[in-house]
Amino acid sequence: MKNIEIKYRNMERTYIKDLKEKTGQGVLISGWIDIRRDHGKLIFLDLRDVSGKVQCVVSQKEQETAYREADELRPEWVVSIKGKVNARPEKMIKPENENGAIEISIEEITVLGKAKELPFELGTELNIDTYLDHLPLTLRTPKSRAIFKVQATIIGAFRYFLTNEGFVEIQAPKLIGEDAEGGANSFNVEYFKHIAHLAQSPQLYKQIMIGVFERVFTTGNVYRAEKHSTTRHINEYTSLDLEMGFIQDHTDIMKMENKILAFIMDYLGKVCTKEFTLLKSEIPHVPEEIPRLKLREAQEILKKEFDIDCENAPDLEPEHERKLCEYSKEKLNSDFIFITHFPVSKRPFYTYEDENDLGYTKGADLLFRGIEITTLAQRIHDYDTLVEAMKKKGLDPEKFSYYLQAFKYGMPPHGGFGMGLERLTAKLLGLENVKEATLFPRDLNRIDTLLSK
Amino acid sequence: MKNIEIKYRNMERTYIKDLKEKTGQGVLISGWIDIRRDHGKLIFLDLRDVSGKVQCVVSQKEQETAYREADELRPEWVVSIKGKVNARPEKMIKPENENGAIEISIEEITVLGKAKELPFELGTELNIDTYLDHLPLTLRTPKSRAIFKVQATIIGAFRYFLTNEGFVEIQAPKLIGEDAEGGANSFNVEYFKHIAHLAQSPQLYKQIMIGVFERVFTTGNVYRAEKHSTTRHINEYTSLDLEMGFIQDHTDIMKMENKILAFIMDYLGKVCTKEFTLLKSEIPHVPEEIPRLKLREAQEILKKEFDIDCENAPDLEPEHERKLCEYSKEKLNSDFIFITHFPVSKRPFYTYEDENDLGYTKGADLLFRGIEITTLAQRIHDYDTLVEAMKKKGLDPEKFSYYLQAFKYGMPPHGGFGMGLERLTAKLLGLENVKEATLFPRDLNRIDTLLSK
Repeated sequence: MKNIEIKYRNMERTYIKDLKEKTGQGVLISGWIDIRRDHGKLIFLDLRDVSGKVQCVVSQKEQETAYREADELRPEWVVSIKGKVNARPEKMIKPENENGAIEISIEEITVLGKAKELPFELGTELNIDTYLDHLPLTLRTPKSRAIFKVQATIIGAFRYFLTNEGFVEIQAPKLIGEDAEGGANSFNVEYFKHIAHLAQSPQLYKQIMIGVFERVFTTGNVYRAEKHSTTRHINEYTSLDLEMGFIQDHTDIMKMENKILAFIMDYLGKVCTKEFTLLKSEIPHVPEEIPRLKLREAQEILKKEFDIDCENAPDLEPEHERKLCEYSKEKLNSDFIFITHFPVSKRPFYTYEDENDLGYTKGADLLFRGIEITTLAQRIHDYDTLVEAMKKKGLDPEKFSYYLQAFKYGMPPHGGFGMGLERLTAKLLGLENVKEATLFPRDLNRIDTLLSK
Repeated sequence: MKNIEIKYRNMERTYIKDLKEKTGQGVLISGWIDIRRDHGKLIFLDLRDVSGKVQCVVSQKEQETAYREADELRPEWVVSIKGKVNARPEKMIKPENENGAIEISIEEITVLGKAKELPFELGTELNIDTYLDHLPLTLRTPKSRAIFKVQATIIGAFRYFLTNEGFVEIQAPKLIGEDAEGGANSFNVEYFKHIAHLAQSPQLYKQIMIGVFERVFTTGNVYRAEKHSTTRHINEYTSLDLEMGFIQDHTDIMKMENKILAFIMDYLGKVCTKEFTLLKSEIPHVPEEIPRLKLREAQEILKKEFDIDCENAPDLEPEHERKLCEYSKEKLNSDFIFITHFPVSKRPFYTYEDENDLGYTKGADLLFRGIEITTLAQRIHDYDTLVEAMKKKGLDPEKFSYYLQAFKYGMPPHGGFGMGLERLTAKLLGLENVKEATLFPRDLNRIDTLLSK
């Protein structure tokens, strides 16, 4: 991180994380008052900036003006402090704190922003609703900062890896006419004199773009008008999407996802160890080849190992996903497992049917720590087959004529996946509720504040 | 770009751009039939992949089976071709073509995807409506590919630069309750039993996040329900946004934008020279310090140099922007110019008023090649001042109570900007209509196809 060019009386700002290297020197630091403690004629201030926290002290006797300035301060006031970095006496060193061996003796204080009294002390354990009601304040904790730093790192690593693999980033529209998944779960938008919808995924557009760039990715918001109110659903989330052409089959997508995950975890290990430590979570190992089971094999295992009878079920229940992840971790030594070959009846119209296993699809769900984090598949690329598949699902090909042009005018075998950024972040960091991994979560009852009944 | 792992009869695919280095060797190439030409017992096929184009040839006499296969092919069919890279005889070399010195002699053809007859030849000059009606096809030209490759590069460079400057990427919500700019131009969304809106910018959320990360950026779709039908407006576009804390004033944002633009142009010069050549456009030079004028100074110049009388007007008309860019280019040798100090009355409620120039704001528009591409400003960070500013604009602070928490609980001086990715792309590449720089543009009359009247 480079220094912000804030200059105060001709001094450059020092980030708090860099103070240790300036022991004995005069510095200018800026940030928020985290905690204030009064000890007789001394005032102690913990100052917090984006990089860390440090204790500052001012004595009434030695720095009368600065002491009076300090006496005004309350939690969350924003200040610049000019002072000197002192080494603490041996017995006062707190090795558990990052800056436990130093202290700033305050010489001057400038108030940059005042704060009213807080509704609760920052860092207090709150119930989820109170937490969400006050995000502009509650996001300021080290925990939240760690969560969203990890999230930013994941999305950055995703893009970096794919760009190097020859994928081109595209900007997919979110305002759409007809919906890829059938439309039942999409939000309506009043679009001038028409009704438009919010896209549930960039699916149709990333497929179209195979004809242009062969390999594309896109990152952006998607929308599900699902009336769920669970710890695993939100109505607006960030989807990491890719689509690649000239594949042999869905296993190419599985291999690509395997490599992407390995890269992301490796990258997190390089730049986010502090955050994982703070959140008491571990970066998972991604196996060279993530184990894979056909749905039917998985169902046999559920029967045999867990006495769960779900053979012939067309899909996995949340409980099944959890058990399969348990199995994978214990028996196959992997936090990740692919479940392939879901039935054609349960997958979207564009999913490729396996010629060697009719009725089942060339695709997979990726399970991670108890939950599905990706759905991937080869797609149908032949125009006539695709039109037939639409009709079988009761969709009107006329309504998809725009999208169908891509197939009418020549498409290679291709496939791809979508992955929810917030869910991945939550599972990686062991957060119970996906809303903790969503910056400003929207659900059935809430857009920022609770919606009136 | 790495090789896709498509294997065909145990051969790896070679990208067309790499064929020159394989003269004399057997190769497997894959792509789309661009053009087919029949010359007696020879069939010539131009094959196109994401990396380039090459001529392939098959003779009826020498390769009877392959000739029969080739005879089936039509434009936009997707094929894999096994063949040999031959150097062309001296007199047949076409130096104007990238692969004009080689030719593939076809040995085997595999059809991967068929195509129906095209509505027009790819690359034909089309009117904008026909072009937009057929984007899944018309985006496949070298011109379109170049435009959106440049666009992907811009957004990648923007993120890369800011990440290195200590900015953290955030995912701003697009579904919002109240709207930052007043609400008149926002789309309504049926959100369960409520009405939500589509965000016109991530403004409020990026400001909130200053309290968390000090410096943030976000890239994503924004929405304007403007009933314009012009060459410079679209209703859904991609906004490149940043916000930074602990600034002195708006000039820090101007400096940051100056550096970002210099970085992006430098980066485009490294990776997109081919695209700029193809589009006959030049990468602009970004001056060390982009010239800046106060609005009132700019208006004096308009009077003096162009005899345009607009003194005391609160804003610039498109014509004025064009003239000021002319002036900047000719007199100040810069494609870019900042116009600062627009009146408070014409700027959003959160804009900072200049204490030394009351009635005018600490902010600027950046003009580039005749048009505004950014609005930047310092923001009000004091709670009471912000509440007052809202009231003056006729807004109800109660409705913004969620956002106002950030200010209630301590904010540093900060500011930022937003820049439309599509408009920047269009201006950089000399495209007349911003829709040519938008992958799937939405306007008053169109979402993919024309909306019924």
